Amino acid sequence: MLLSLKLSYKSATGQDYQAGLPPRDLVLINNGTTKEEDEDFVDPWTVQTSNAKGVDYDKLIVRFGSSKIDTDLINRIERAIGQKPHRFLRRGIFFSHRDMDQILDAYENKKSFYLYTGRGPSSQAMHVGHLIPFVFTKWLQEVFDVPLVIQLTDDEKYLWKDMTTEKAYEYAKENAKDIIACGFDINKTFIFSDLDYLGTSTGFYKNVVKVQKHVTFNQVKGIFGFTDSDCIGKISFPAIQAAPSFSSSFPQIFDGKENIQCLIPCAIDQDPYFRMTRDVAPRIGQPKPALLHSVFFPALQGAQTKMSASDPNSSIFLTDTPKQIKTKINKHAFSGGRDTIEEHRKYGGNCDVDVSFMYLTFFLEDDDRLEQLKQAYTSGELLTGELKKVLIETLQPLIAAHQERRKQITDEMVKQFMTPRKLDFEF
Amino acid sequence: MLLSLKLSYKSATGQDYQAGLPPRDLVLINNGTTKEEDEDFVDPWTVQTSNAKGVDYDKLIVRFGSSKIDTDLINRIERAIGQKPHRFLRRGIFFSHRDMDQILDAYENKKSFYLYTGRGPSSQAMHVGHLIPFVFTKWLQEVFDVPLVIQLTDDEKYLWKDMTTEKAYEYAKENAKDIIACGFDINKTFIFSDLDYLGTSTGFYKNVVKVQKHVTFNQVKGIFGFTDSDCIGKISFPAIQAAPSFSSSFPQIFDGKENIQCLIPCAIDQDPYFRMTRDVAPRIGQPKPALLHSVFFPALQGAQTKMSASDPNSSIFLTDTPKQIKTKINKHAFSGGRDTIEEHRKYGGNCDVDVSFMYLTFFLEDDDRLEQLKQAYTSGELLTGELKKVLIETLQPLIAAHQERRKQITDEMVKQFMTPRKLDFEF
Repeated sequence: MLLSLKLSYKSATGQDYQAGLPPRDLVLINNGTTKEEDEDFVDPWTVQTSNAKGVDYDKLIVRFGSSKIDTDLINRIERAIGQKPHRFLRRGIFFSHRDMDQILDAYENKKSFYLYTGRGPSSQAMHVGHLIPFVFTKWLQEVFDVPLVIQLTDDEKYLWKDMTTEKAYEYAKENAKDIIACGFDINKTFIFSDLDYLGTSTGFYKNVVKVQKHVTFNQVKGIFGFTDSDCIGKISFPAIQAAPSFSSSFPQIFDGKENIQCLIPCAIDQDPYFRMTRDVAPRIGQPKPALLHSVFFPALQGAQTKMSASDPNSSIFLTDTPKQIKTKINKHAFSGGRDTIEEHRKYGGNCDVDVSFMYLTFFLEDDDRLEQLKQAYTSGELLTGELKKVLIETLQPLIAAHQERRKQITDEMVKQFMTPRKLDFEF
Repeated sequence: MLLSLKLSYKSATGQDYQAGLPPRDLVLINNGTTKEEDEDFVDPWTVQTSNAKGVDYDKLIVRFGSSKIDTDLINRIERAIGQKPHRFLRRGIFFSHRDMDQILDAYENKKSFYLYTGRGPSSQAMHVGHLIPFVFTKWLQEVFDVPLVIQLTDDEKYLWKDMTTEKAYEYAKENAKDIIACGFDINKTFIFSDLDYLGTSTGFYKNVVKVQKHVTFNQVKGIFGFTDSDCIGKISFPAIQAAPSFSSSFPQIFDGKENIQCLIPCAIDQDPYFRMTRDVAPRIGQPKPALLHSVFFPALQGAQTKMSASDPNSSIFLTDTPKQIKTKINKHAFSGGRDTIEEHRKYGGNCDVDVSFMYLTFFLEDDDRLEQLKQAYTSGELLTGELKKVLIETLQPLIAAHQERRKQITDEMVKQFMTPRKLDFEF
């Protein structure tokens, strides 16, 4: 029995048991995702912070070991594309990266790359926050003129939720319509459901197995917090999200071309998958994917948590009517204003915690206008109700236009986007 | 640190740590594969016994919870097919089963089934022992007139060995030639490499994910002895070997028909995979596969171990010349005879440990002749050299005929067998 215990100890810690000695380096195994006192918690399933301003992203950069997107990098992107950088870059919404310099080096030397992003289709309902990576990826596709693959992890949703494979696949196809409505180029974009695509690609499963050979349970336990009671599907899933980082997973798309560099725009909570992928890549003879990380889109109730698709009042949904948008913002958007008009006029509002202002930084294109609003709100000149009105008037036409575009998306178009086929590109 | 330790303890044992108390039921986790004092050890990678007669199969039946193939069942098979049962049944080489009665019930009610067997293509070299499941499966296919799928687990070999995916796939195709040479019906047989087939089946991956959702790491740890240091590929692999038990993994083969009953002939060391599969099946709405288990084919050096494809003297290989066969048997086949001719004549030989006699039980078709040999050897009338001569004269033409048939197998035929296509069957 004691021997069994010692073996259990060894398999759990990777070290021989020594009486009286705690295991060495156990903290290191947790690879930065441990929840410490007063620290934000960020992994692909949970984002938690006790700060109304949201997660401390500077700390996250240090903990995850990524690099800040600084003014130099933004200027360099501007020079490379000959255009003004997207507002998400100008405003620090995409704030962190890995190897973006290498992407630009290659781009300037006429060596191209491809984009990879994705979504877990957990329900039919998508909210405006879900659009952030897609809006930005659409812009990247335009300015760099590169192909794009979009993974819909219906297998992940089947594994994590109480959901049939059929339902998950149905959500994937529904979500694809909202994604397509962002304006992606059909000749340069491939959208795929894992449950469907794995059975139609001669390259995907080979890369999955290669990644799976080079990652141990100890590692995924450290990175993702899996336990022995988790199903083996969850434990091996990270390889499924890793595989699209390698162009050989898409023989039809890239005409059999391997080792094309990949750039992944995603929210920072997805970084653990790609840290793992970057660790494995050189060991299976593949280039490491580069990354661009975004902050989280705050819930209407405040930046302490990510939004929940299951709470209709936690955000603005892509199906909301102009009236619903108005009501939700007026009723639920957390205000950084003062308790009374008098106090507000005297002391001013706090943009750092005001959700309406945060949403405007995401969606209001005009930099000058945003700056004016900030000053007016901070000085007390602009009241919460007035700020909310600006947000309502920004979001209403934006959502209406999205709904209009989505209505045009036929099942036939979805099928086209989701058919493995050679994309339009020159490498 | 202590908290971390306790968490490790909990994840390893599934129990809260209590000072001074060893974990309860730790032995149960091992689910029958623990090596106990004087007990045989059997799992898909290791077979060990200290007994020269080989593994104690009666004990194994009790430990694995399967059923003995008794005279009643053999008689029932004979009645169902209207033919003499195969020598492997008559001689207890296929000795254990799960739900074979149900297969026969269904068969007698004109409900059909399909066969599934497989091989891990660890090298180009196959020995006569590797043929056992295929020789028997070929007979089952003939007498029951049913379709058959043969899985070549090149992904498993890539995960377990120091081998590229390309090499593993190459071995798979080479092994397919030896398998085809056993005489399978091309219109009723589909042979597939995992690395290749997963990317061409719309059903396979869905079943893999379904199995993976219903098996925890704790379970595969108990069944297969995996540890936290094992790669996630090994940990999730059992689902890949489970999936062919469900006809929906082969939409092209079975014309989309689901829930066709499956019968798996295999060596008993593969049973852990299918115990797991049978446990999961009802929870994912699939029928449990039935099984027929064979004993292990002994090494020339004795029945204590399974043969090793890497030791050329441990068995007769399918590529051996008549001269090599003769030399190997004369030089290496463990004898149950006495030290001197005088002693042998006086006390007789021991068929229970004599490898030449064991091999004859596998390959000599004539029951009367085998019984005569046994009596003559046991009585001392027949000498070891004479018994070996009978084996040599049995195996030489058998191997030569196999080589002749294998020579006829073209790459084109392999391709045909390995192309997903509707098989010839009526259900």
